[in-house]
Amino acid sequence: MSIDKEVSIAVVGAGGVGSCFLQQLAYISKNHPKVRFHLTYVAIIDKALYHKDFSDIDIDTALSTLEASGRPLPTLDVAVDYLASIPRKVVFVDNTSSQGIAEAYPEILRRGISIVTPNKKAFSGTYELWQQIFDASLSTGALVYHESSVGAGMPIISTLKEMVETGDKVLRIEGVFSGTMSYLFNSFAPIAGTGGRWSEEVRRARSLGFTEPDPRDDLNGLDIARKLTILGRLAGLPIASATSFSVQNLIPEELRGTMDTEEFLQKLADHDDKMELLKTEAEAANKVVRFVGSVEVATGTASVGLKWYNRSHPIANLQGSDNIISFYTERYGLKPLIIRGAGAGGHVTAMGVSGDLLKIVSQIV
Amino acid sequence: MSIDKEVSIAVVGAGGVGSCFLQQLAYISKNHPKVRFHLTYVAIIDKALYHKDFSDIDIDTALSTLEASGRPLPTLDVAVDYLASIPRKVVFVDNTSSQGIAEAYPEILRRGISIVTPNKKAFSGTYELWQQIFDASLSTGALVYHESSVGAGMPIISTLKEMVETGDKVLRIEGVFSGTMSYLFNSFAPIAGTGGRWSEEVRRARSLGFTEPDPRDDLNGLDIARKLTILGRLAGLPIASATSFSVQNLIPEELRGTMDTEEFLQKLADHDDKMELLKTEAEAANKVVRFVGSVEVATGTASVGLKWYNRSHPIANLQGSDNIISFYTERYGLKPLIIRGAGAGGHVTAMGVSGDLLKIVSQIV
Repeated sequence: MSIDKEVSIAVVGAGGVGSCFLQQLAYISKNHPKVRFHLTYVAIIDKALYHKDFSDIDIDTALSTLEASGRPLPTLDVAVDYLASIPRKVVFVDNTSSQGIAEAYPEILRRGISIVTPNKKAFSGTYELWQQIFDASLSTGALVYHESSVGAGMPIISTLKEMVETGDKVLRIEGVFSGTMSYLFNSFAPIAGTGGRWSEEVRRARSLGFTEPDPRDDLNGLDIARKLTILGRLAGLPIASATSFSVQNLIPEELRGTMDTEEFLQKLADHDDKMELLKTEAEAANKVVRFVGSVEVATGTASVGLKWYNRSHPIANLQGSDNIISFYTERYGLKPLIIRGAGAGGHVTAMGVSGDLLKIVSQIV
Repeated sequence: MSIDKEVSIAVVGAGGVGSCFLQQLAYISKNHPKVRFHLTYVAIIDKALYHKDFSDIDIDTALSTLEASGRPLPTLDVAVDYLASIPRKVVFVDNTSSQGIAEAYPEILRRGISIVTPNKKAFSGTYELWQQIFDASLSTGALVYHESSVGAGMPIISTLKEMVETGDKVLRIEGVFSGTMSYLFNSFAPIAGTGGRWSEEVRRARSLGFTEPDPRDDLNGLDIARKLTILGRLAGLPIASATSFSVQNLIPEELRGTMDTEEFLQKLADHDDKMELLKTEAEAANKVVRFVGSVEVATGTASVGLKWYNRSHPIANLQGSDNIISFYTERYGLKPLIIRGAGAGGHVTAMGVSGDLLKIVSQIV
């Protein structure tokens, strides 16, 4: 089979997602029937690997070579100039969660470089940045895909975009968008049995690695608000930012000051009775409490917070740290399209990224 | 915004899916920022509408014009010659369930014409036809997409293809692939309550339009076997045909002869005790019985039949006529990716077709 296309890949970030992505890129480059992939640039926080003559970096050994003989990281401007001078199509793969890189997306796209990323920052920041990104894409034809910015590798964004582009009317999007919140509420208020005390569940989830090092980074609801911002905008709502709508913060007000994580976890126990009351109130109505996000397209509103569900409802009935996303649309009628599964993790997040890369490669000449 | 591309669309079939597809095509052609869609050919069972000079057919009035002033349907060879002579890229949209058209896919693709279709026949027929189709696509670059051949508009096939192409190992695919079987078993063996007698549930489902006019066309399991054949092949298994693996036929052996539907439904009642026993056996184990299909990739086997599930299992916990498909893969680990929703219906099936059309259009120059 003859090679139809050649494409250069630039990868920034080699953490959990980035290193899994490089493994997948190695697989794809060996198995794609028609495309030759050239890894031309790899960077981590302080180092970069690239060659003045644009020669290939071996994918399998890229990270060890970068570690051993990378140059000091160039400024983003210098890096983008370098990428724009590569004499073939370039895809920039941003596997960081950097705000600075996110803000450079419009310029990167204006230089004709396509982007794939799981980085939520660019799409959940100001609405102005969102517009600049998609305007730049539309004017140069450089593409930008970000499936893994919501629900990791699950087909959430592609599905929503297809609904919108084919003329379905999205009415409501609702779900559990955080593996941490899923795990916490599935344990705290299970559909069968009583569950533990709130602060103990938080402590246990943390020890099992289901929370950020500081659980307050999950409990504040901001990560979920960012995801809803992205979905709401894709559904056509000009959501100003991830802090422009109602987000329930599960960090008690008294504990929002500066204190270390251990002190926070100790003091959180003082609020267990309040959480227990929430749980028993729901139980009295034969329901369970869950922490969900939703976008109501008709009213143009998004919200994040506690809601009650019947035990047989798919949102009540989650397990472990699974995410679930329901799309209520005109075409689907009363029964939503539901997608459920792991919404975090290096391999599945990277799969969303490499799937997006394949979509871009199929479209560029 | 300037037009980047022009594409000709040929549509065959104007039943439930076909007429919804034309509505969606009208929407897409008015709203796509960069592509001009030309409807160049429309055909139904005995008539076709097309112009020697390839001039456009108005999408909104296509069906009434076809009805009023269509020509007699040309042979498929003549139609394909006509389509191949159109001086731009052509996408052939097969909204029929015709075996004859399915068998022409290799030739259509060899002529450089891309295909989108919900028609299962081509992909669940002989393995030789499957190979001819994808070989033709690979050699000419004409594309073939068939999302709606499994699970209507739900992102089943695109998700599975992405897993395979990015190097995930698909281990098992399991689910309820038939809206009819979903409805029947959710009513016959609900997770709460006792459910009705089997033959009465079949009769009721039929009267509500949840079965084919003759329910035996659902109860024989063949439709599910066709879908599993497609998924198994996409997962890499060379499944010979939809009748090459174990398929449980819920039509009692004595009732497989020729008799009309009413006689069948009456005689089915004689078998209610046997079905009731299946239900109570499962209940005694605190489970419910469901009619599922599964593909086990490691052993290369597919099967369709009755299985027991815990009440909290997502497959037990379906509602109405929803389909559910679970992908167990190496990357997703113990918890599968699950997609659930309507697996039939004109609008959602057409959405899979028009979504595929957009994918093709984004890739062809």
